[in-house]
Amino acid sequence: MPNPTAAMLVIGDEILSGRTRDANAYHLAGRLVQVGIDLHEIRVVPDDHAVIVEALRSLSAAFDHVFTSGGIGPTHDDITADAVADAFGVGIDVRDDARALLQAAVGKDRTLTPEHLRMARIPHGADLIANPLSGAPGISIGNVHVMAGVPTIFVAMLDAVLPSLEAGRPVLSRELRFEVGEGRIAAPLRRLAEELSDLSFGSYPFRDGAVYGTNIVVRGTDDALIDQAIERLEAIRRSHP
Amino acid sequence: MPNPTAAMLVIGDEILSGRTRDANAYHLAGRLVQVGIDLHEIRVVPDDHAVIVEALRSLSAAFDHVFTSGGIGPTHDDITADAVADAFGVGIDVRDDARALLQAAVGKDRTLTPEHLRMARIPHGADLIANPLSGAPGISIGNVHVMAGVPTIFVAMLDAVLPSLEAGRPVLSRELRFEVGEGRIAAPLRRLAEELSDLSFGSYPFRDGAVYGTNIVVRGTDDALIDQAIERLEAIRRSHP
Repeated sequence: MPNPTAAMLVIGDEILSGRTRDANAYHLAGRLVQVGIDLHEIRVVPDDHAVIVEALRSLSAAFDHVFTSGGIGPTHDDITADAVADAFGVGIDVRDDARALLQAAVGKDRTLTPEHLRMARIPHGADLIANPLSGAPGISIGNVHVMAGVPTIFVAMLDAVLPSLEAGRPVLSRELRFEVGEGRIAAPLRRLAEELSDLSFGSYPFRDGAVYGTNIVVRGTDDALIDQAIERLEAIRRSHP
Repeated sequence: MPNPTAAMLVIGDEILSGRTRDANAYHLAGRLVQVGIDLHEIRVVPDDHAVIVEALRSLSAAFDHVFTSGGIGPTHDDITADAVADAFGVGIDVRDDARALLQAAVGKDRTLTPEHLRMARIPHGADLIANPLSGAPGISIGNVHVMAGVPTIFVAMLDAVLPSLEAGRPVLSRELRFEVGEGRIAAPLRRLAEELSDLSFGSYPFRDGAVYGTNIVVRGTDDALIDQAIERLEAIRRSHP
């Protein structure tokens, strides 16, 4: 069985305008490797309803899971819940369980404002994702998991979602440092990658003071095969000093 | 005249596997704001020929410019040049001017290896992008600009490419700090954003010790209009202590 597949959709003018460096896609990528879900695409789009709907439709059709970050919250630029409802062709309304979560977060003696209630609007048929930090829940509907853009909240929501998903075999990786440029070892490396085609080989040049070197990363789900690849790489390293 | 549009295509298993946190899209976003090119999408895809070809075709049809990073270099996982040739339906061969750049980079007394020559393969009709750091050039063909994934080289190649592109009006931004949560100011903020619809307003919650606050960012190309928006925001801040 191949691992389940996934895409990440980042909703954020603030990323595209260069104001903010995305942290959530990087966090998600690391977590999915641990649980054996293969991340195939990351897409960053603006806070634009039609663009978000189209991206949700195409990514949810192409992959087993879609994780989104951003565009939920009380302000004018928070439009993800409506886009999700449109993408799935369902209605959206304030829901009692979501309202109760917000009421608990603001304190039971405070009246919820219209802006609070915007955060309790939930597409019909969605499940809520708990938000232990600020109340406003994320949502899961179909294969789409909608989470907050604030990194601490994104991390907490992802922790709440991942255990409920069917996982695959964790992808393991090992890395070997070569103190030669990648051109010097490209030929034997290509032959090894062709021979051990169940593994993936990545080659990452680096510069460390006067040394131009290359880190070779081997990835796969079979630990013994990765060990075998590392032994073969060590032999290549000995013969290319 | 609206500003030209752009997309970024990041080619990199290392990003999708969580090994590396992308730096190039963040750098590009900041530079494009300065020159007045509007970044509409960032897409990260694996080192997969068919996926790269499809992404190049759809992004180059949808936007005025496409910038790519990653997948150029001498190793087995460097497949961008072939994908670009296929996306544009042109051939690809080692070209003399590219070979000369590599010869200069390795020193005129060394023989170029087959791996060096892979980096001199250029799609027919492309222009070269200078690589002052390690010789292997990037390429521009049609509206696609293919650059290295190593961040220092990406930065240098982008500096070489940007002056040749038709630019728009730089996007200016100013930011105002509110020491109240975004729910408190969402309603007047939405009204202001509707009234000054030539500007974009972003709302970014933060937590600073015991303070839950909100940074409001105003963006646009008209400096005077941004000043006017900031004055109005300051009035909102005074009335929502």
